Amino acid sequence: MKVLVAGGAGFIGSNLIDALLAEGHEVVCIDNFFIGTRENIAHLKDEPRFKLYEQDLTELEALKAIFQREKFDYVFHMAANSDIQASAEKPEVEYKNTYTTTFCILECMRLYGVKRLFFCSTSAVYGDAQGSQVNELFSPLAPISYYGSCKLGSEALISAFSYMNDLHSLVFRFPNVIGPRLTHGVIFDFIKRLRQEPGQLTILGDGRQCKPYLHVSDLVECIMRFKDQVPAGVTTYNVGGSTQSTVTGIAEIVCREMGLKDVAFHYTGGRGGWKGDVPVFAYNLDKIHAAGWQATMTSDEAVAQTVRDVL
Amino acid sequence: MKVLVAGGAGFIGSNLIDALLAEGHEVVCIDNFFIGTRENIAHLKDEPRFKLYEQDLTELEALKAIFQREKFDYVFHMAANSDIQASAEKPEVEYKNTYTTTFCILECMRLYGVKRLFFCSTSAVYGDAQGSQVNELFSPLAPISYYGSCKLGSEALISAFSYMNDLHSLVFRFPNVIGPRLTHGVIFDFIKRLRQEPGQLTILGDGRQCKPYLHVSDLVECIMRFKDQVPAGVTTYNVGGSTQSTVTGIAEIVCREMGLKDVAFHYTGGRGGWKGDVPVFAYNLDKIHAAGWQATMTSDEAVAQTVRDVL
Repeated sequence: MKVLVAGGAGFIGSNLIDALLAEGHEVVCIDNFFIGTRENIAHLKDEPRFKLYEQDLTELEALKAIFQREKFDYVFHMAANSDIQASAEKPEVEYKNTYTTTFCILECMRLYGVKRLFFCSTSAVYGDAQGSQVNELFSPLAPISYYGSCKLGSEALISAFSYMNDLHSLVFRFPNVIGPRLTHGVIFDFIKRLRQEPGQLTILGDGRQCKPYLHVSDLVECIMRFKDQVPAGVTTYNVGGSTQSTVTGIAEIVCREMGLKDVAFHYTGGRGGWKGDVPVFAYNLDKIHAAGWQATMTSDEAVAQTVRDVL
Repeated sequence: MKVLVAGGAGFIGSNLIDALLAEGHEVVCIDNFFIGTRENIAHLKDEPRFKLYEQDLTELEALKAIFQREKFDYVFHMAANSDIQASAEKPEVEYKNTYTTTFCILECMRLYGVKRLFFCSTSAVYGDAQGSQVNELFSPLAPISYYGSCKLGSEALISAFSYMNDLHSLVFRFPNVIGPRLTHGVIFDFIKRLRQEPGQLTILGDGRQCKPYLHVSDLVECIMRFKDQVPAGVTTYNVGGSTQSTVTGIAEIVCREMGLKDVAFHYTGGRGGWKGDVPVFAYNLDKIHAAGWQATMTSDEAVAQTVRDVL
């Protein structure tokens, strides 16, 4: 089939494109290179089933022209500002790149009759659930970051557009995803700083922030497995591994994989790393497990694999 | 105090302004007259404590200038596209007038340090709950109209902005509100059509659609009573009357109040009036009742009063 990967030059998007091409599909990528990079898709430049539009997804008229021309069978919406910490000082970035992209994509799907959608959502829609094992029906959904709020707003749009236009929409809410082509986040940051100064590492918070990390290969395999069996309406899954990693644990894994010994850890203290961060988080994965999927790596294994991917 | 009523020339906004002025506050109204009318605020033209800006709330730079100049103590955000049926064919209206207005107001509150917000939300955030008595923690929130989805997206923004900027936000989710200055909806429509043709009335659906109607005087009294006791974070209430009116019942009340007899009702048939409409709806009001508030009118009384208000 012919698919659009919106935000396809990003970390997750580019990994998904590789899997879609491997399964024989024709892939159109739209990216504005705000966070995505040319490097992430450089290996596809001679691939005849791959096509790139350098285009901002919030320019609705230009997007309409692409939809009219390409006639997509399926849209994978992976475009967003994925750097939550950066948008804390500039919520407009989320309004534009996380929410408005969703609106424009859905409006084009409505106008050009595209019926199938995959959407990258996030554990951030749950807000700070204070350690509860949140499942897909957790309430209230009270996001504490601009990112989480614009993802939840996007889910709300998908709900109405799906009902009004008979879409088949698959929404995955996942936590931190890591792996090759990672562009930011704690692992990326630790590696960068340890390269500059291998003897010590400053850690935000008390180091006990504890979250599940998912390797992008597990996530992409899950998308590929579920993408063709979506009923009418919206189907939402929590997707993740069953274990968590602490920030101190991540620091230890990074040091070990980099071959560093006796690194001094300095903690800035406090519960969270930064405002809008959710410091302790656990996922209920009963629904996706019951559907027959499990991550192949534990959270710590995903961290270790990512350090090897990135080094 | 000095307050902003965003969308203050609209039906609910203009009724709220009257109450705020009566309590002695200084009121600034911003409206683009998209749905609001000059007539709704014409009686305030010589009121020294009232000021009007004709301004689209989505023009962020212009809005910033007003916030900088006026130094508000409180923002009442009543601006939205309130004509759900009209936006069913044009979701962009909701993206702009219902969602983007919220983003721009919150961004100005963040930048200029305004800490208190009242937000008009809606029962439409619940989607089609198929007759469940929905309370504030009902899950999943799956709006079926573009209007409901943009209101839910707005609530998500309020959640994050409140957390990040220590706002005190009060969110009322209410069903159809009716009363003087009503501009659209079933009562407005029935009166208009019966004036043109007093002998017969076409009713969308099977007439058994059943919803709670709230008189605007009850809603405004509730806002005024709760506005000053909002803790930090977001406080959400369902607000409404405890009874419902059927569409056929509304038609009968309108005919009676208009002094019409033997009007022939014709039904278009089917469950809902139009796509995106929620035909049967019941509210759980335990939380607002426990806080000491009850509507003074039943739903049918509110309908009858509105016909008298509007005639």
